[in-house]
Amino acid sequence: MKYSADVLDSIRWNEEGLVVVVAQDYNTGEVRMVAWANREALLKTLETGFAHYYSRSRRSLWKKGETSGQLQRVLQVRVDCDGDAVLYIIHQEQGVACHTGERNCFFRSIDGSKVTKPLPFEVLARLQEVIEDRLLKKPQDSYTVKIYMEGEDRILQKLGEEAVESLLALKGGDPQRIKEELSDLLYFMVLSLTTKGVSVAEVMEELSRRFKTSE
Amino acid sequence: MKYSADVLDSIRWNEEGLVVVVAQDYNTGEVRMVAWANREALLKTLETGFAHYYSRSRRSLWKKGETSGQLQRVLQVRVDCDGDAVLYIIHQEQGVACHTGERNCFFRSIDGSKVTKPLPFEVLARLQEVIEDRLLKKPQDSYTVKIYMEGEDRILQKLGEEAVESLLALKGGDPQRIKEELSDLLYFMVLSLTTKGVSVAEVMEELSRRFKTSE
Repeated sequence: MKYSADVLDSIRWNEEGLVVVVAQDYNTGEVRMVAWANREALLKTLETGFAHYYSRSRRSLWKKGETSGQLQRVLQVRVDCDGDAVLYIIHQEQGVACHTGERNCFFRSIDGSKVTKPLPFEVLARLQEVIEDRLLKKPQDSYTVKIYMEGEDRILQKLGEEAVESLLALKGGDPQRIKEELSDLLYFMVLSLTTKGVSVAEVMEELSRRFKTSE
Repeated sequence: MKYSADVLDSIRWNEEGLVVVVAQDYNTGEVRMVAWANREALLKTLETGFAHYYSRSRRSLWKKGETSGQLQRVLQVRVDCDGDAVLYIIHQEQGVACHTGERNCFFRSIDGSKVTKPLPFEVLARLQEVIEDRLLKKPQDSYTVKIYMEGEDRILQKLGEEAVESLLALKGGDPQRIKEELSDLLYFMVLSLTTKGVSVAEVMEELSRRFKTSE
């Protein structure tokens, strides 16, 4: 991974020679974990393209997932304005980052409840994960499996129907109905993409590429 | 903001009595900043619903945006598995979190370039921000303004056209064409939502609410 010596030298390592690292998922945007890196761990990350950290308890360099297989492919590394925090944009192998088996380490809400609902920015990528899982395991009670079994044209027909219903809802202007119809349309968009092996992220990359001109 | 004494007591404050805090945007998912909180700052955050931190340089409690007006409304607070990191899910007032005037503190890539393209999970919310800005400032060369000026039915007609083109692309199965047509469709979806005063996040909230049953 290419890196600038200037940016690297702008990092303000703490008294232990460490900087805090936030690992964020490229597809879902969820914060997978927060850990620490020393200069060696960061350089190893840049060299190998896999997330390395420094374990303060074990006092040693640590390649995430080396034993568990839950590796983190690092797609981007960013440094914050004052150089005391680093952001790894990652692809999480096996979809699990936390040693507890949870998908990320931030599953505990301060109110004591467990976090279950995806945040707005997570929804489409998480929905695609669920759909992929359903199409793989084919549980009997799954609507996704049922509609999938009816064939491609049936899915596209539903997509067309939901597009028309979205048009009518938008023309009508009732916010709740707009949200419901657009949600239906997005569900069939993601289902169709999934059956074609195209990820939500790939579509968003296309939209992002146009960003300056997309307005 | 409701909080559990157990979760609060599970936080492992460091030798300075601090815990690292990641502030993540509710709409875009971008990591806006990383800072520190002591127990008082966290309690103030939970009490007031606005992000408070502890400044290690100024050695004092700090309400984000108190002077700049760039307040952070805190919608959720999460604690990580081992209690040594906290996640604030925030709404960023004025859309700017960084003292440099950038929207977030992680605008520097390790390769020395400046981050410009939104990540996949950011794209739809960021696109809506751009569209809102265009409809407000009405720059002459803006396609969004041009199509908006042609009226609601014209926008909905384009939405319908792009839905049909997306259908045909999905039926055809060429990945690149699928990405392009779906991007066009998403653009007109976000434009239509914007003209109706519905946010992308509100639609995603609807989809998230159904999450367990959305498959």
